This record gives sequence, C-alpha cells and structure tokens, in this order.
Amino acid sequence: MKNLGYYNGEYGLIEEMRIPMNDRVCWFGDGVYDAGPCANYIIYALDEHIDRFFNSAALLDMTPGLTKTELAELLQGLVCKLDSPSQFVYWQLTRGTAERNHAFPEKVAPNLWVMLKPAAIENIYEKVKLLTVEDTRFFHCNIKTLNLLPNVMASEKAKQAGCQEAVFHRGEQVTEGSHSNVHIFKNGLFQTAPTDNLILPGIARKHLIAQCKTLGIPVKEMPFTVKEMLDADEVMISSSSIFCKSASHINNQRVGGKAPELLQRLQDSVLAAFYQAVSLDRSIKASA
Amino acid sequence: MKNLGYYNGEYGLIEEMRIPMNDRVCWFGDGVYDAGPCANYIIYALDEHIDRFFNSAALLDMTPGLTKTELAELLQGLVCKLDSPSQFVYWQLTRGTAERNHAFPEKVAPNLWVMLKPAAIENIYEKVKLLTVEDTRFFHCNIKTLNLLPNVMASEKAKQAGCQEAVFHRGEQVTEGSHSNVHIFKNGLFQTAPTDNLILPGIARKHLIAQCKTLGIPVKEMPFTVKEMLDADEVMISSSSIFCKSASHINNQRVGGKAPELLQRLQDSVLAAFYQAVSLDRSIKASA
Repeated sequence: MKNLGYYNGEYGLIEEMRIPMNDRVCWFGDGVYDAGPCANYIIYALDEHIDRFFNSAALLDMTPGLTKTELAELLQGLVCKLDSPSQFVYWQLTRGTAERNHAFPEKVAPNLWVMLKPAAIENIYEKVKLLTVEDTRFFHCNIKTLNLLPNVMASEKAKQAGCQEAVFHRGEQVTEGSHSNVHIFKNGLFQTAPTDNLILPGIARKHLIAQCKTLGIPVKEMPFTVKEMLDADEVMISSSSIFCKSASHINNQRVGGKAPELLQRLQDSVLAAFYQAVSLDRSIKASA
Repeated sequence: MKNLGYYNGEYGLIEEMRIPMNDRVCWFGDGVYDAGPCANYIIYALDEHIDRFFNSAALLDMTPGLTKTELAELLQGLVCKLDSPSQFVYWQLTRGTAERNHAFPEKVAPNLWVMLKPAAIENIYEKVKLLTVEDTRFFHCNIKTLNLLPNVMASEKAKQAGCQEAVFHRGEQVTEGSHSNVHIFKNGLFQTAPTDNLILPGIARKHLIAQCKTLGIPVKEMPFTVKEMLDADEVMISSSSIFCKSASHINNQRVGGKAPELLQRLQDSVLAAFYQAVSLDRSIKASA
C-alpha cells in the first residue's frame, strides 16, 4: 500500500477512509496522539512513544482499549503493509463516538486511529530558518492533544515568512516550537527548558540530553529568553521526525554558527543511535 | 427525520454520516462553529450567529464557500426536514481535507458541516449549580473554535460534582463558563466581563445587555472576581441554548437569591423577545 489509514480495526488508503461524524474529535478535538519515524520497517523508539501516548491519554481520563504491547504489535504489523520501508508513523485515540455534549459520554469505547505515510529520513545537517511567535496556547502543552490550532496558525505564519518552524515564546521566555522542542548551545553547554505544562516532553529532546551526557557535554535544564536564543552559539530544534536541526536564521537575522564542531558531534551521535536502532548501515539511505 | 448531519451537500442521520479521515478537524481540530436554538422551525437570532461564524472563520484565515445569505437559506431549509420544530442547530467549518501537515494545505476548499437535533426550549427559571475551575485555556477564547478540550474537561468535572456548568477563572478573575458567559447582579447593576481574547462575544450575553438597557437596568462591563461572584446578589449564566439561568450554588455554597424580582424581570424580558422572534405564543411550549 502507498499509505494507510486505520480506524478501530478497519483500514485502507487514508484518502478513502471515513470516520463517524459523531467521533468526538469532530466537535471538540477530544483526543491525543503520538508519532515517530520508521525506517527499515522498524519504528524508532516505539516503546517511549507508546509510554507517552498512554500518559497523554491518562491525563485526559482516557484509557486505550488495548495494552501497550498490543499497540506496539498492531503498529509494527501495520507498517509492514506499506511499500515504503521509511515512514511517518502516527496514531491517535479519541474519546469515543456519541451525541455532541461537552461532558464525557457514558459507556463509550475510545477510538483508535493509525495513519502511515512514506517519509524519507530527514537530512539533519540541513539548516532551518525560524520565526518567533507569541505563545498563546493553553496550559496543557505537556499533553499531545488534538487541539492544535495555535500550532497550525504559527506554522502557517512561519511558512509564509519562508521559515521551516515557528518558535513560541511567552513574553520573553522561549517555550518550544510549533511541532518541535528548542535548545541552545552557549559556552559549551546544552541548554533546554525543563518540561512542565508549557512544554512537551519531547522524546528527541530526551535523546539529545542522553547523547550530551554520553559525550560529556554539560546540560542545563533552564528556560532561556528570546534574546539569549538570538545570542546563542547554536540554536537547535528537535522532534522525532527531524531529530536535531540547527538554525541559520531567526526572524531573518543570522543566528548560531559559533559552535559547529560541538553541534556536529551531537548530531552525529543522535543519528548513529537511530541508524543502530533501525539496523541500518549509515551508508544506506532509506528512501521514501 | 429525527436528526440530521450534513457535510458538504450530503446529509443523513448523524449517526450514519461519515467524514473523510483527512478532514483537518481529525488531526488538529482545525475549524470553527456556531450554534443556536430553533423553535417553530425558526432559527433564533440566525443572522447574528452567522455574522459571528464568519468572523470566527476570518480570524483563522478561513472563508466559507458560500455567502451569509446562502448559509442562512441552507440552515433554514435543513431545519424543516426534522420531525421536531424545536431543535439545537449547529454548524461548523473545517479548513479542508488534505494530508496531515500543520501549515495550511494549498488550494483546498473548506468543509461545511451542519448538525441538527431535537431540543426542548429550556426552562430558564430553573436554578443551576456551578463549579469554579481554573481557566487554563488558550488566548483565543473570542473565537468559537473546535479546540475545546479544556471546556470538555471542565464540563466533566462540573458534572462529576453534580453541577450543570463550570465557571472559569484566571487567577481571581472570572472569565466565562465552559459553554456560557457569566454575569452578576450587584446593587441593582448588571455586571459582566468585557469581551476580549479571554471571553466569547456571546449572543445571549449581547441580548441580555440589550434587555437590561430596555428595562433601565444599569450595565457595567468590567471583570469581577470569584469572591465578588460568590457575594453577588444574583449569579447568572447565559448561552444561546439556555438564555439566562441563575445559580443557587457555587462549589456547594449557596449564592445569589438576593435580587429575585430584578432577575425575573430580565428573564421574562429575554424569553419574551425569543417567543416573539420565533412567532410562538408564550403559552405554547414548543416540544422536542
């Protein structure tokens, strides 16, 4: 198959799949998701993504109708149906299907969705341009919910400005990207905001911190300001799909480029861990 | 028909309607809505709701694919298909159907949804119990979006506490209900928070203010605190569905009841305007 949409056991091409109008996602965006890359038909860091997915669901009083192991087996089975060994693997849980009422419906099972599409492994050494955007989101950014309108609006704003990502800030304080975490290098130190209700506990973020520790790079989990970001030695964004890319520009102003060796050590290390996990020789580029 | 779901020209029973998995509502809650009551097959204050709907859409860079007049005609035509003359009339616009990417898809038409269900005219003289909940929503509460998770969670919390509505507050300041506006009477004065990005410009709220002016009741558009609400002469919630109900309890504590004549004058006046608009004799209760 060229792509795959799955809904409660039924599946087909995404563009041919239909879901009930009364799925609560339609009226409230009432659900959570998780996603990550797959290469060589192996979903990277799957257990970590599934743990976070169950945690997001629990924070909204939802319980998936299957165990973590069953979900892992389901996803691993579905990715094998695609023509491409390299994929974007996405799944979500919505609260259920019921007449529209704000409060939870009673005795209704949640709905499980999966969406798979071919995706080449990103070139993490490619520079990105960023745009700063005031963070007007809710105070539940630690949960991967389907309430993503401010993220959508910020992404579009970034795109219109010729940028690849929007960086949110609440007042002076940088929080995270519209679909990434944001980090800086300053004086040999890796700095990233601590995860709280303003920031998603990114799995790529966690991997970056782990790799820093392996490489002996000191890590400081403390928020930084927009000014500190603009003055940093390097500015990086991370997500499960892009791993860790560094910025050449923010708001059309040149940034970073002052610690290229340190940056490359970290990127090499992160990428090597990925290639090892998906049993790929680094010289073989998985293609979409 | 006992109810009706409409999607881009197709319609049927809501529970039988299916929508494309790639409608952006499914991944991002990327859409806006509006809703109001219908009695005697007449949709109440339809033009005001349609104006707000177009405004919500514009604030998110969406343009409905039909004019205000065409939408009014469509809705007025659809309500006539239902068995019940008294309905909850709901419609929404989602950004379109496209592969999941945060930024807007190009050259994609928005999707128009309608959902109609029977709904009896509410007994506005019935007292309600309220629960206060910290307002953790985003800063776009002036737009009627489909990103309603905090509203869902607060409504459920209220329901679990035996209450009919949750009242949000940011710190000490009351904002609005999870699906209503909140107002107080104090010393003969009607007080309500001004509409800004923390508060929906409620149409029932606007009607209440207009009725106050007609009745010679002074109106103060200024935020009030939780404490001021607990100490008020009357506490009221308003929405297009419930018009204006007053609270007997907040957080299990007795509130209001100190200006019953003033309250009833306002409620009588609001209800009379509704009955007149839908050409119903007040003595004829439209039934669901």
